[in-house]
Amino acid sequence: MELSINDLALLVNGEVEGDGSEKVHRIDKIQEGKKGGIGFLSNPKYEHYLYTTEATAILVSRDFQPRKKVKTILVRVEDPYSSFTLLLEEYQKIMNFQKSGIESPSFIGENTVVGDDIYRGAYSYVGANTKIGNNVKIYPHVYIGDSVVIGDNTIIYAGVKIYERTVIGSGCTIHAGAVLGSDGFGFAPQPDGTFKMIPQVGNVILGDNVNIGANTTIDRATFDSTLIESGVKLDNLIQIGHNVKIGSNTVIAAQTGISGSTIIGKNCMIAGQVGITGHLAIADKVKIAAQSGIISNIEIEGEMRLGSTSMERMKYFKSFSIFRILPELKNSIKQLEEKVINLSARLNKDEQ
Amino acid sequence: MELSINDLALLVNGEVEGDGSEKVHRIDKIQEGKKGGIGFLSNPKYEHYLYTTEATAILVSRDFQPRKKVKTILVRVEDPYSSFTLLLEEYQKIMNFQKSGIESPSFIGENTVVGDDIYRGAYSYVGANTKIGNNVKIYPHVYIGDSVVIGDNTIIYAGVKIYERTVIGSGCTIHAGAVLGSDGFGFAPQPDGTFKMIPQVGNVILGDNVNIGANTTIDRATFDSTLIESGVKLDNLIQIGHNVKIGSNTVIAAQTGISGSTIIGKNCMIAGQVGITGHLAIADKVKIAAQSGIISNIEIEGEMRLGSTSMERMKYFKSFSIFRILPELKNSIKQLEEKVINLSARLNKDEQ
Amino acid sequence: MELSINDLALLVNGEVEGDGSEKVHRIDKIQEGKKGGIGFLSNPKYEHYLYTTEATAILVSRDFQPRKKVKTILVRVEDPYSSFTLLLEEYQKIMNFQKSGIESPSFIGENTVVGDDIYRGAYSYVGANTKIGNNVKIYPHVYIGDSVVIGDNTIIYAGVKIYERTVIGSGCTIHAGAVLGSDGFGFAPQPDGTFKMIPQVGNVILGDNVNIGANTTIDRATFDSTLIESGVKLDNLIQIGHNVKIGSNTVIAAQTGISGSTIIGKNCMIAGQVGITGHLAIADKVKIAAQSGIISNIEIEGEMRLGSTSMERMKYFKSFSIFRILPELKNSIKQLEEKVINLSARLNKDEQ
Repeated sequence: MELSINDLALLVNGEVEGDGSEKVHRIDKIQEGKKGGIGFLSNPKYEHYLYTTEATAILVSRDFQPRKKVKTILVRVEDPYSSFTLLLEEYQKIMNFQKSGIESPSFIGENTVVGDDIYRGAYSYVGANTKIGNNVKIYPHVYIGDSVVIGDNTIIYAGVKIYERTVIGSGCTIHAGAVLGSDGFGFAPQPDGTFKMIPQVGNVILGDNVNIGANTTIDRATFDSTLIESGVKLDNLIQIGHNVKIGSNTVIAAQTGISGSTIIGKNCMIAGQVGITGHLAIADKVKIAAQSGIISNIEIEGEMRLGSTSMERMKYFKSFSIFRILPELKNSIKQLEEKVINLSARLNKDEQ
Repeated sequence: MELSINDLALLVNGEVEGDGSEKVHRIDKIQEGKKGGIGFLSNPKYEHYLYTTEATAILVSRDFQPRKKVKTILVRVEDPYSSFTLLLEEYQKIMNFQKSGIESPSFIGENTVVGDDIYRGAYSYVGANTKIGNNVKIYPHVYIGDSVVIGDNTIIYAGVKIYERTVIGSGCTIHAGAVLGSDGFGFAPQPDGTFKMIPQVGNVILGDNVNIGANTTIDRATFDSTLIESGVKLDNLIQIGHNVKIGSNTVIAAQTGISGSTIIGKNCMIAGQVGITGHLAIADKVKIAAQSGIISNIEIEGEMRLGSTSMERMKYFKSFSIFRILPELKNSIKQLEEKVINLSARLNKDEQ
Repeated sequence: MELSINDLALLVNGEVEGDGSEKVHRIDKIQEGKKGGIGFLSNPKYEHYLYTTEATAILVSRDFQPRKKVKTILVRVEDPYSSFTLLLEEYQKIMNFQKSGIESPSFIGENTVVGDDIYRGAYSYVGANTKIGNNVKIYPHVYIGDSVVIGDNTIIYAGVKIYERTVIGSGCTIHAGAVLGSDGFGFAPQPDGTFKMIPQVGNVILGDNVNIGANTTIDRATFDSTLIESGVKLDNLIQIGHNVKIGSNTVIAAQTGISGSTIIGKNCMIAGQVGITGHLAIADKVKIAAQSGIISNIEIEGEMRLGSTSMERMKYFKSFSIFRILPELKNSIKQLEEKVINLSARLNKDEQ
């Protein structure tokens, strides 16, 4: 991706001061700007970087008056920060959607229907009886099993594995190495001490605009569906057990694990390395701190939890503040015991 | 997979009431039944669903007498629940073993011997001098290195990576993205602060009927073998360090990590997100609760452990029950101190 | 790999006693030696194994005098342990670098430059505008995006996924299933409760001699770079957030997670399953125990931390030693209270 300053100016409705035919191909911070990059100046505290930056161009506000000589090209806009954010978003969009066409070889099964403007990378595999929407990007080494459904504008990065009968909505992003639809972990103990697998015949369903992080795993349901509702954002290396349901717009950070059949509400925020046991119900808008262990239902909407046994936030902090001074506490008790012995001795003396 | 009701009835030794030529392709709960599905009715509490379900067929007991008119096809069997379980198992078997033949392209190295009735998916890679048994299923994007041995009836899902010299038994199931045989994490510190890798020349051995979850990683031994005995079931995203040995029929839940050279007994049950440090020995039939940290040997067969420093179960609960009331405890001590000061004052007064 | 004893003896400057034309293809412990293996005897405690081992050859010291008849071939060297370590290292080198040439099919994009003595496994994918050094090993199913740079002598195992614009130094080893350069986890909350992705336009940079474990994930920076400096060793299933910087020669064990924008010093040792929150600074040479949670800066070089809320080592042990006896402590307080009540009663009696 390489754009002239003039083209960029059109995008953000800006005026160019300098050579508009110069090109940029990268987005920079003003303090770390290098040739070929474009940055922005909004906070006056950063103004001095304007005079030293090596960035090719800088977005400034329409009424900005430089106090020294400026080497870089200026692009004057209404609000430099908003314009910069807009550039970032456009850049991301171009990065995500620049891939198109069909690289060879790539595998496609029988009776599979594929939409328009698709990218199918080399060595990607799409099974039979599968339905893929428009403008879907399937990177190299992606595996999509039989009877899968994928909505429009979804991006599936390299090496994602999607088992048969998974359903994925529109506008989803699934990062490299994620696995959707592996067997739920269900085994029935046998009299001889071995375990027999309980058949897992359900599937995984993702709503729209779901993001799945790299190497995250989502097991399919025993029956029915493991359900990730629209707008959910999952980070990397997360484990979602069979039959879990996650409500819309819930955000979960890396390495958290949710055991089978637990139902998480909408708009929750769950930090990293949290463990939630199976068959629980968590209310909407609940916040759970990193490394917490949740072993019972959370029924109050918006509650905050933390600690490895999941106490209510303020109670936990109180207990923990004393846990930290337990040695001093033990000492106080010892002194107290001595005082009481002392008192007792004096009393005994009085009574004689 | 699509079967007529008549064919299904043969499988479960049932009698059909209705049009046996109708077809089903899915297994449903009675309360969520849809056209094309088959469910069952065993618990009388669910009987009312029989009159509203849209499932194409329902398994009922031989002597069941409907109290209302039934639209769905009935299949009368001895024990509806057992018959249903049988159907589930058959369904799973068909799902797992429906793949066969060799998709193109797929890579096979020199001197490699492959059994009968095998599935080799497109873009699968099998190295040189490798020996693969009968009825093995190798999904797309599987990598199998040189000098590997794989037993009969083993299923290896998409994108599994198996390093050279790994040995896998019969009847194993390995889920997408799992890695077997990566280097053990062993580095020798050098005088200049850098680390030099300690060569890891051993391998990984899996017994029979082992299940490995999605994106789980098992490192090969420094020498000798990292050993996962027959019947072991590992969930997703588990880390097994080099030279670990796991006894037969032990079950481990997701995101648990076991450090190098630890030996786990037979028939243990280890929950999720547990950490076990290196060079430990854990007895048979031990149970370890979620998020526990195990830092010393567990010598008593069948012991239960939990807590982040692995105390014995009952002791931990006792301590933790007080940890929760530490603020009140601290308060009691403070009141006690006041009483003693008070007592002391009164005594002093008496003595004057 | 198969070598004659004579060839091995040349490598370690040894003298052969026995048939030097015999061949070995494996490295064994003396106590577990089998035909085709070579072991060593250094510690006199192990001497009795020399008379029973089935290994084809054993390294012994120049002046060693056997007390019984020996069946195995002896190779006399200056220091058997050093010679054995040398053999191990050579073996590892041969294992790692035995692969060469280009297997077919393998994909290479436009304007990509590849060095000499490279291995490109079947179904590997290298994007456009990428630059790959000499003697690089790219295993099957590796995905390397556009505009990536990879230094000399780097090994990339099967199924590694490297996003566009990642930079990797020389002498690195990246294990199967690792993901480098996935989107940072940054989302801006919107008024309607949904989240909008914050564009992540930075990249990932690895220095030289970095090791990355299987299925570890490293997110690219929002801007700028997520930076893993030279000599860093990361174990399996680790999560590195966007904009993290890890100083040279720091070693991190499996399943640890580091949140966005945290800066870790040089020569740190971080154990497994540790969680470190975002935007922290950790000094050089810090040691952090397994399962710790770090929620504030560590400013003192070489400090040791442990516990799920990261207390200083000695303080934590003190508090925890009392946590374990809290039930007894509570009992002491109760007895104390009774004594004080008793005392009080006696005082009251005196005063009447």
